Amino acid sequence: MPKEKPYDISRSVGVVQPRQVTLDVSPDGFRLESGETLPEVTVAYETYGTLSPAKDNAVYLCHALSGDAHAAGFHTEAEMNAAKPKPGWWDLMIGPGKPLDTNRFFVICSNFLGGCKGTTGPSSIDPRTGKPYGSRFPRITVGDMVDVQHRLLTALGVPRLLAVMGGSMGGMQVLEWSIRYPDFVDRCICIASAAKLTSQALAFNVVGRRTIMDDPDWHGGDYYATGRVPAHGLAHARMIAHITYLSPSILEEKFGRDKKADSTPARFVSSFQVESYLAYQGEQFVKRFDANSYLHIAEALDSYDLEEKYGNLVEAFQRVKARYLIVALNTDWLYTPEQSLEMAQALLHAGREVSYCLLQAEQGHDAFLLDLPELSNLIGSYLRTPPAHRPGTPAPPPPEGDEYPLIRKLVAPGARILDLGCGDGELLAALTAGSGVPGLGIDIDIHHAVATVGRGLPVFIQDIDAGLAMLPDHSYDVAILSRTLQVVRKPDAVLQEMMRVARLGVVTFPNFANWKHRLRLGFAGRMPKSDGLPFEWYNTPNIHLATLTDFLALCRQERIRCTRLHCVPNGWLSKVFLALGFRNLGADEIVVMLERE
Amino acid sequence: MPKEKPYDISRSVGVVQPRQVTLDVSPDGFRLESGETLPEVTVAYETYGTLSPAKDNAVYLCHALSGDAHAAGFHTEAEMNAAKPKPGWWDLMIGPGKPLDTNRFFVICSNFLGGCKGTTGPSSIDPRTGKPYGSRFPRITVGDMVDVQHRLLTALGVPRLLAVMGGSMGGMQVLEWSIRYPDFVDRCICIASAAKLTSQALAFNVVGRRTIMDDPDWHGGDYYATGRVPAHGLAHARMIAHITYLSPSILEEKFGRDKKADSTPARFVSSFQVESYLAYQGEQFVKRFDANSYLHIAEALDSYDLEEKYGNLVEAFQRVKARYLIVALNTDWLYTPEQSLEMAQALLHAGREVSYCLLQAEQGHDAFLLDLPELSNLIGSYLRTPPAHRPGTPAPPPPEGDEYPLIRKLVAPGARILDLGCGDGELLAALTAGSGVPGLGIDIDIHHAVATVGRGLPVFIQDIDAGLAMLPDHSYDVAILSRTLQVVRKPDAVLQEMMRVARLGVVTFPNFANWKHRLRLGFAGRMPKSDGLPFEWYNTPNIHLATLTDFLALCRQERIRCTRLHCVPNGWLSKVFLALGFRNLGADEIVVMLERE
Repeated sequence: MPKEKPYDISRSVGVVQPRQVTLDVSPDGFRLESGETLPEVTVAYETYGTLSPAKDNAVYLCHALSGDAHAAGFHTEAEMNAAKPKPGWWDLMIGPGKPLDTNRFFVICSNFLGGCKGTTGPSSIDPRTGKPYGSRFPRITVGDMVDVQHRLLTALGVPRLLAVMGGSMGGMQVLEWSIRYPDFVDRCICIASAAKLTSQALAFNVVGRRTIMDDPDWHGGDYYATGRVPAHGLAHARMIAHITYLSPSILEEKFGRDKKADSTPARFVSSFQVESYLAYQGEQFVKRFDANSYLHIAEALDSYDLEEKYGNLVEAFQRVKARYLIVALNTDWLYTPEQSLEMAQALLHAGREVSYCLLQAEQGHDAFLLDLPELSNLIGSYLRTPPAHRPGTPAPPPPEGDEYPLIRKLVAPGARILDLGCGDGELLAALTAGSGVPGLGIDIDIHHAVATVGRGLPVFIQDIDAGLAMLPDHSYDVAILSRTLQVVRKPDAVLQEMMRVARLGVVTFPNFANWKHRLRLGFAGRMPKSDGLPFEWYNTPNIHLATLTDFLALCRQERIRCTRLHCVPNGWLSKVFLALGFRNLGADEIVVMLERE
Repeated sequence: MPKEKPYDISRSVGVVQPRQVTLDVSPDGFRLESGETLPEVTVAYETYGTLSPAKDNAVYLCHALSGDAHAAGFHTEAEMNAAKPKPGWWDLMIGPGKPLDTNRFFVICSNFLGGCKGTTGPSSIDPRTGKPYGSRFPRITVGDMVDVQHRLLTALGVPRLLAVMGGSMGGMQVLEWSIRYPDFVDRCICIASAAKLTSQALAFNVVGRRTIMDDPDWHGGDYYATGRVPAHGLAHARMIAHITYLSPSILEEKFGRDKKADSTPARFVSSFQVESYLAYQGEQFVKRFDANSYLHIAEALDSYDLEEKYGNLVEAFQRVKARYLIVALNTDWLYTPEQSLEMAQALLHAGREVSYCLLQAEQGHDAFLLDLPELSNLIGSYLRTPPAHRPGTPAPPPPEGDEYPLIRKLVAPGARILDLGCGDGELLAALTAGSGVPGLGIDIDIHHAVATVGRGLPVFIQDIDAGLAMLPDHSYDVAILSRTLQVVRKPDAVLQEMMRVARLGVVTFPNFANWKHRLRLGFAGRMPKSDGLPFEWYNTPNIHLATLTDFLALCRQERIRCTRLHCVPNGWLSKVFLALGFRNLGADEIVVMLERE
């Protein structure tokens, strides 16, 4: 777990004012997706930073199931100056110089509809009766929550969002924002979320709701006047949920099977630390949360299903105009990386600009609330950097070496470019900057991905060997595979996939049949090494080497035509061989352009 | 999921008689691990097959948390002839011709102590009061359960077990059997189990117990006279546990987000199929299980911890004399494959004979109760086949080809042999049969592992590239790596690991510098192919090829001495080169013996 750092006041938003506003609703009340209405909607919210005169710097932050509007800073000086300050829930991200940089952005966060932290929910007073809604509170949806947020922004005079972002159930609100209000949102950041819960996640919520409803103190939802709350049920629900928020390995690391030393536990209460931790989490939750709110929010969460509503995700995302950054966490078993990838894939299929980043974080689902440097870098870069392809963006310096001019010649300006194994995005940026047409980089390395996003390019973290299933057929003009063919596990499959998703392919690879390699094997009896193949046989990443002749034979077999062929020599003898027409002997590096037959 | 097959009466044990016996206990009662006593212990059990005159064919089967003694067959003719017969819980495995072949073996299963299916438990009558024990039932352990089982077998006149086996909590009883009664047990089969629960598994049990104890109908455990049972609490506990028994993917496949069509669910009860399924599981469980039994058994399960008791697993397993088969399931997230591997590793470190098999099964933890052909094959083979190294076992026909005689010459009779990439065990069997010294095969392929177990050899399913961390230093005389070096990702690391765990290494590999390969690259400009390297460059599993000279250079660098070197020629020209002393030109295949410098 990250070590606790001392709180840095200079990067804090400091003391913030919690605010509340009662929305203007029609005389019939606020209409919900269910068709029912609420007579009155009050929203609790906070803002950080200042809305620019052009009103183009607003970022809306959506909170998760048990969150609230207090995302950053403190409500009092005393809280701020405490020995162990406890700022808002995403203070790590919000403040001067932080990813949601309050010197640049105007950040808004509100408690969502149905909550119990100042926004209208089941524990609020129903103006028609003067008593808490209780069992009379209507069914709400994620869409209703977003509608309320939209009205709040209108009330605040925010005409458009530079970005909307959120994690977990907050990510679902992001999805809904981009679909419900496509013209209102420029960028979306959806973290550790999903377009619908898995069957397993539903299952845990089912038990959680039942523990509340089977608690005799719930009274069908009308417990507010009883002086009691369904504390056992709510605590059990929270304990179950809390387990799902953590990875098995972080539970092992934090608690393992450690026992409390000085406990004389009650019968069947163990002395395991994990038990007292969970019990404490349950108790604390009961103090700060309303059981009916929990039931309503969990119901909204469970019933959220973009596929059910629109037939499929691609159809749902046809409505979207925003650019997307989808972030998944590798140890998140509640909102799995596969679900994030599915969303990213659907956005690609809907023709949207999207980045998909799988982060390594040991802690599980809740890691998005913790100090993950890569998450901060990603979000900061994504919010700061305009798209590289935006007309007028100057081209960065091109990559060094002999290859770039050849590739540049092969790729028509304005082409839709896919760069497989894009590294830090240098080549892709040089090829697409200012072109008006976004490219896409694919790389397996998170540091490469962060760098690529930092260049204003969309990127997918993906193992090319796992296939390019997320890309639609013929979705690019050119797919580039630069010095990568020999490191993949299945070069033939990768070539086929390239030529499925792009009209043209550009491949560069080292020629194993170069005279230096032949000499070394032929006369020294050693595995070839050279400038292009610098590794030892036992530690080389180049696991599928080919000669020019081999490569061309494979292309013929795979019904791929090689329309251009450049042999790059290294040294005078290579040049001589090439000049004499011995390509397979002279070429050190090959650059080919491919087309499907 | 496996399709339902019609029930095959000819392979069934048919109608079986449930039996009960009251154990002879001392006048003070049956002493438990806690120091407390039970005045009386009655055990419910069933047997299948017949005890042989030599009494050497008894197999004891341990059931899991909610299981019972009824493992196979039916209690009545009517049950057997039902349209959908519902036999005992492991009927798939027990019967004539099945893995626990009742024509060969005498199988015993009893309800464990603390249960509610006929063996003394908290719902039994306390003879001292004439009322159910309830809150007076003492704390029990897995060790107490095994003690009762041991007394039962003594009462049945069974002097020794050919095998003890069980899955899940049943596997913990197997562990305890082998440690408590080492001379009583010949073979142990421990399936989907662990030497202690993970923190996450504890966490789920914590919540389960609390839902029961917080149910007002529990009454501190003394509910038997109230006419009510803590039904809500027990149902919630079961629902939580049930989710953990299934893999996320099987939940998705079985239920996904499907909804019941004709439901008008109560408020906050969803129409998701997964909700009605779980609710049904909860209800059914309440009908057949006692809440106090659940609490006691879950407590015994949670507190089971061989490491805590013995300091570490190796120390615990020093007591073991039995051979072990440890089986893990790849989608089991409750009792993880890592936990099984840890046990297998500790058994190896304790010098015991052990096989570790990781099976692919989509269904999660509960898959061991289902029709898994590989599990059946493994268990059947393991029970049937005597150890290959047992003196007097005839050597099987050796593998074909030129290598075997060379390897046979290099390996001293009676050597402890480790075969890395053992395939179906042919080479290892030929080298160790009847030697009196068990070898160990390692392979990544389950079919190879089943075949190897079928030859009476211990095997680990393991990726050699993941290291040999489970093997102690210098634990073998010879490690063999036959035609495998070139397919691993890190040949240098694999060589180092080999030479760590064994005194001598025998490595065979194709020589890339053979004249045929040199000619093909040198003159045809193509990647070499030959009898020894039959693949194309793009689909070859041979990703780290080496020449003889390269290999010897690596050995020098890694401080490994090559003490013997055989060059295997293929064809007359290779022989000529070898005769002339051009080893790196003539050798098609290399066989070397290695020793650490």
